Amino acid sequence: MSLKIRKLDSSAAGFDAALAAVLAFEASEDEAIERSVAQILADVKRRGDAAVLEYTNRFDRLDASSVAALELPITELEAALESLQPKQRAALEAAAARVRGYHEKQKIECGSHSWQYTEADGTVLGQKVTPLDRAGIYVPGGKAAYPSSVLMNALPARVAGVREIVMVVPTPDGVKNPLVLAAALIGGVDRVFTIGGAQAIGALAYGTETVPAVDKICGPGNAYVASAKRRVFGTVGIDMIAGPSEILVLCDGTTDPRWVAMDLFSQAEHDELAQSILLAPDDAFIARVEEAMAELLPTMPRRDVIQRSLEDRGALVKVRDMAEACAIANRIAPEHLEISALDPQQWANEIRHAGAIFVGRFTSESLGDYCAGPNHVLPTSRTARFSSPLGVYDFFKRSSVIEVSAEGAQTLGEIAAELAYGEGLPAHAKSAEYRMKQTG
Amino acid sequence: MSLKIRKLDSSAAGFDAALAAVLAFEASEDEAIERSVAQILADVKRRGDAAVLEYTNRFDRLDASSVAALELPITELEAALESLQPKQRAALEAAAARVRGYHEKQKIECGSHSWQYTEADGTVLGQKVTPLDRAGIYVPGGKAAYPSSVLMNALPARVAGVREIVMVVPTPDGVKNPLVLAAALIGGVDRVFTIGGAQAIGALAYGTETVPAVDKICGPGNAYVASAKRRVFGTVGIDMIAGPSEILVLCDGTTDPRWVAMDLFSQAEHDELAQSILLAPDDAFIARVEEAMAELLPTMPRRDVIQRSLEDRGALVKVRDMAEACAIANRIAPEHLEISALDPQQWANEIRHAGAIFVGRFTSESLGDYCAGPNHVLPTSRTARFSSPLGVYDFFKRSSVIEVSAEGAQTLGEIAAELAYGEGLPAHAKSAEYRMKQTG
Repeated sequence: MSLKIRKLDSSAAGFDAALAAVLAFEASEDEAIERSVAQILADVKRRGDAAVLEYTNRFDRLDASSVAALELPITELEAALESLQPKQRAALEAAAARVRGYHEKQKIECGSHSWQYTEADGTVLGQKVTPLDRAGIYVPGGKAAYPSSVLMNALPARVAGVREIVMVVPTPDGVKNPLVLAAALIGGVDRVFTIGGAQAIGALAYGTETVPAVDKICGPGNAYVASAKRRVFGTVGIDMIAGPSEILVLCDGTTDPRWVAMDLFSQAEHDELAQSILLAPDDAFIARVEEAMAELLPTMPRRDVIQRSLEDRGALVKVRDMAEACAIANRIAPEHLEISALDPQQWANEIRHAGAIFVGRFTSESLGDYCAGPNHVLPTSRTARFSSPLGVYDFFKRSSVIEVSAEGAQTLGEIAAELAYGEGLPAHAKSAEYRMKQTG
Repeated sequence: MSLKIRKLDSSAAGFDAALAAVLAFEASEDEAIERSVAQILADVKRRGDAAVLEYTNRFDRLDASSVAALELPITELEAALESLQPKQRAALEAAAARVRGYHEKQKIECGSHSWQYTEADGTVLGQKVTPLDRAGIYVPGGKAAYPSSVLMNALPARVAGVREIVMVVPTPDGVKNPLVLAAALIGGVDRVFTIGGAQAIGALAYGTETVPAVDKICGPGNAYVASAKRRVFGTVGIDMIAGPSEILVLCDGTTDPRWVAMDLFSQAEHDELAQSILLAPDDAFIARVEEAMAELLPTMPRRDVIQRSLEDRGALVKVRDMAEACAIANRIAPEHLEISALDPQQWANEIRHAGAIFVGRFTSESLGDYCAGPNHVLPTSRTARFSSPLGVYDFFKRSSVIEVSAEGAQTLGEIAAELAYGEGLPAHAKSAEYRMKQTG
């Protein structure tokens, strides 16, 4: 198998434009999908259970008599957990324990506590921090059903203190994935409905007679699910609309090229649109990685997807030095960034924009995907410039708290009234002045 | 002037549906606006400065020769500040100092620090927290040009440590608002372009030869601006798409009814879609508030807007008691919640969902709008169930940090490989196994 992966050199003329072309990705919008989703959502909003039941029976080829019959009893989740091979179950539980532990630390560090302070005149200011009442988690059915995703979405919500977690997962032709159901139990999901698609998103957003309305919907899905999430945003919160997955490997040439090759493969095997890029200051090393890829590719079960992904969207980039590699990494703002180098910390210090930074050659991305502890739901498509991994903070929200003392109302009233008159809002001014002794 | 404001009773049959009808608000989508905005954005993306200049000259009736000529020199901001009346300037500076002070406290409390911990085997896990590189602030021109909004958007970004803040504000017919320009200077804005509408949002999102691309766009705007923000979301972050402003007053009947009436007015004067609702357990008190409103309305310069807003969207609701008022408040999840009562703190403790909680009768909403310190950009339309006031946290983001030790790679590798094989992702498994001594 010959692999034709794009090669760039940061010193070459036109490098910036060439890199931009590699990174360019426009999610296409499908008119037919948009129309269909809009109609399904409107129908679920209007007819509730009846609509959800009809769409589910039709699209998933089921014969359920009610939406209630589509809810899985907890005993079925328990049976799924019992059915796993001991080694598989142990791995799932170990991963959950580590992810839970990390997010518990995060809860302490990320400012999930209410706070306030009192000023000299007795005025109290602060913020009240509260978890969401109810979260919904979408889990895709079929091939892309990942138990690790169930854990990564449910555990931060659980740790944040969300009262109820409702999971939806389609079961086309009635096929259930025991790993996914076991993960739901381990992750602390409260209720599971075997519904999917835009109808499931509608049910979670608007609520039906049987499915409770949630406050935020998380989790990945196909184009219908993504469109539906976008449309219900505002009625409920959503996590993010993820683009194709990405890895950027920065390597100083001191790592086994086969390790680097396999790390690039691990991203590429996700799907054909996934993006794997290597930045290295050493032509000879890049050549060795290329050789390793050519050698390893035929051994990979998912070689067709890997090849297509690498040839369409991958790149091997020769850079001047590791400092330049860091600067380019900040421009790319990748979802996953591996720093495979001697003294990797010095380079990690230079990174401002990345979903997750994998420091040092022993930290393969796949360890983070499953069990290191941090969340694997990460910002893609350069959105790491302004957004963060899914975390505990996505499952709480803040209310400002303001308690102005009688004395404080005098000084603040004067400032507010002056500005309110300036903005042409006299009722605002009067409302402040009423609290001032000299005028009220 | 007779004022016909809707009255509800929580004990009456059909109350839940009646309340839902009062709260129902669907932002209408205008096809013509959508098409126009899509076309302007595409044009700005393709032609950069040339497109921005053409649209600005056409829509704002200007005759600028270049986009560079639309940038205001810092001296012009300084001149605007100097031109203010001393009292106005003092009020603006006092408000800015208080808002800055509150957000500095918030920065400390809300988890803006990087953190990490080391496990027994040497594996390091944590999060790196960094400010955004560049933020864009949209400020509307004309009537709705509020200097307080400039402060509320710029100061959290400045306090968070954003490197550069770029403000855009349209100046139709060349008319500049000195209060807005002065607020930009006080708020720490770095660059100001006198451009607006969808073309300004496009310029900030994509960047042009002259306008730098930003990472996040904040600030209110008209239907074109809202549509453009929604469309560029993903390329950049956005704050939120705000609905009509809302106030919910909970009063136990012990506050001067004129204070309550004026607080309801202060929201209603914003615009005809604004929503003002009172919950009180006392029929006689509600009648006194109604009398106060009838008496005060003719004295208000913006009485037409107030009347329309109150009659179309307002409500006076008799509740069983203050505990029920709190439960209904959580259902409404209002943008602004005033608790005007004896021992207001006991009721504040019951509130889970609100943008801002104004505790006690001296805390009029208008004090929070201008100068108490907390942000006045707040979640509307029940989104306080899952979102928060604009804050310092909106201007930084997080990167997971994972540094697995050689020893850690052994134990984690085993878990990851097991789960990766289970999910049908063998390159993930191999990549983990390479780091394990027994297999790599």
